[in-house]
Amino acid sequence: MPVPTNFRRVFRGQRVLVTGGLGFIGSNLVRTLVALGARVTVVDSLVPEYGGNRRNLHGIAGRVKIHIADVRDWPRLPRLVRGQDFLFNLAGQTSHMDSMTDPQTDLDINCRAQLAILEACRRHNPGIRIVFASTRQIYGKPDYLPVDEKHPLRPVDVNGINKIAGESFHLLYSRVYGLAATALRLTNTIGPRMRIKDARQTFVGVWIRRIVEGQPFEVWGGDQLRDFTYVDDAVEAFLLAAARPEAVGEVFNLGGPPRVTLHALAKMLVQINGSGVFEVRAFPGERKKIDIGDYYADDRLIARKLGWKPRTDLHTALARTLEFYREELSNYL
Amino acid sequence: MPVPTNFRRVFRGQRVLVTGGLGFIGSNLVRTLVALGARVTVVDSLVPEYGGNRRNLHGIAGRVKIHIADVRDWPRLPRLVRGQDFLFNLAGQTSHMDSMTDPQTDLDINCRAQLAILEACRRHNPGIRIVFASTRQIYGKPDYLPVDEKHPLRPVDVNGINKIAGESFHLLYSRVYGLAATALRLTNTIGPRMRIKDARQTFVGVWIRRIVEGQPFEVWGGDQLRDFTYVDDAVEAFLLAAARPEAVGEVFNLGGPPRVTLHALAKMLVQINGSGVFEVRAFPGERKKIDIGDYYADDRLIARKLGWKPRTDLHTALARTLEFYREELSNYL
Repeated sequence: MPVPTNFRRVFRGQRVLVTGGLGFIGSNLVRTLVALGARVTVVDSLVPEYGGNRRNLHGIAGRVKIHIADVRDWPRLPRLVRGQDFLFNLAGQTSHMDSMTDPQTDLDINCRAQLAILEACRRHNPGIRIVFASTRQIYGKPDYLPVDEKHPLRPVDVNGINKIAGESFHLLYSRVYGLAATALRLTNTIGPRMRIKDARQTFVGVWIRRIVEGQPFEVWGGDQLRDFTYVDDAVEAFLLAAARPEAVGEVFNLGGPPRVTLHALAKMLVQINGSGVFEVRAFPGERKKIDIGDYYADDRLIARKLGWKPRTDLHTALARTLEFYREELSNYL
Repeated sequence: MPVPTNFRRVFRGQRVLVTGGLGFIGSNLVRTLVALGARVTVVDSLVPEYGGNRRNLHGIAGRVKIHIADVRDWPRLPRLVRGQDFLFNLAGQTSHMDSMTDPQTDLDINCRAQLAILEACRRHNPGIRIVFASTRQIYGKPDYLPVDEKHPLRPVDVNGINKIAGESFHLLYSRVYGLAATALRLTNTIGPRMRIKDARQTFVGVWIRRIVEGQPFEVWGGDQLRDFTYVDDAVEAFLLAAARPEAVGEVFNLGGPPRVTLHALAKMLVQINGSGVFEVRAFPGERKKIDIGDYYADDRLIARKLGWKPRTDLHTALARTLEFYREELSNYL
């Protein structure tokens, strides 16, 4: 990602805490922040089912303070947030299915720990600038498309309910206590360092893995429309949200043109890879219950307010991701 | 409250669990259920800051099983829900101010414990019929009046955020797992056995106490419009919601005509009491931040679907409440 000068001015020499900083988006953000001259501290639990992977900071680990700690471990939070200029709060449990089979764990991470993080900031570092990673999952099955930020929140799973609470705490603490927080509602994000072991982060991860392994992959349903943000574009949105005062107290959708059906996405992947086979299957019953049908974001608010626009088209995003995993596959299994 | 025959048919001999059953609405519900011939088990934490008071079941305590237990104590939940036909789930932390000064406790009771209760039901008693006590607090500052169930949820305090999560878990478990749950969004509820020690349940409690004590009371602001449900009417709504299959998976507002300003309410209280003095004061700063302005409910949905209508006018409600506390004051301080 090209680094605009203003980001260097904002982040150079600044102390930045990234929760979930060994994860997919977190680590890409950390890499950019380090390139910008920021003094980065990473907190990551490295719970095997989540996105954290030491390999994600390969080559820059020596330039970053890394704490293997769980945001559910409250007593550690005050010391972590104290003295930081920025907090990028990306620690989360992302699997929708896991949120149904183990709902209390999802609650403890996505809801309860978020409140603890905010309390730590309020008490120990009220001047900190916070950007929180929220998710399109909170909208549930859309009433209309594209989905803007005013769309009702009607989550279809425990994860969605807890992410609403987590996001709401951020906005409330911003409004009531003047903690400067912004929330970004991410759509499917793809790119290097995404979890490909399984579908816990996104189903695309498994597709990438199978195609790079030369194995067939499964497309469930196939007609659902989705949009995808390339990770560098998501990183830019986090930096913008942190840098721009007009983002305080706001919530923004991220999107990424073009919207495609999952079937079309699968075909595009095979075409870019030069080979590959997939099978279209009916949606398994237990997933059907929490599926949301079509989704794509209206991201004009962040375009208008912060000037954010996804720069990377889907073809390029997929090509770069495939290229990364052709080299790195063994480090991500 | 007159007991309609159909309630007797529904609840007679049935095993009914009431969480928060020593509290204000809970205990009034328990009294009615006992009169209907139900076999009632009460769970209440008797945390001094909450609504529970042993006096609330005075005269019928011998006809009810009472467990002094906290819904945060998960291991006890399976044994409590097993074998029950109905669950009236009213345990909650109701103070908006306390939710700001001790947000994690509010979260643990209003959000986390609710999920634990639902998990216990799902695993140990999936056939149970559940009615959950939600609150108008989740709407926040209204966009329009009267507020119907489609109004956006924009809570102004930690309590509102956690109550949304608690309600959402109930509706999700109903939709995904077929647990038969209904949520009632209560407005200010008044009547015998309300907490009058302080304003943790409702400011009206303090007014009642002061006026019965012959002391002046304070009205903050005074122009805010509110509606009030008399507790017997609220109890009837809980019974209806539990009895009627068409209520499953639904959420209903409760209201109560007429809407009045707080100033008019104070004058009405003084008039009914025959004496009393109040002072109108500006809103204290820390409360102003989480005040919602005017609120009154559109409760036509429950009228249409379940035939519920508040039967008790405000004058009668206040008169009965004052009468109760003239007798019972010393048991509620």
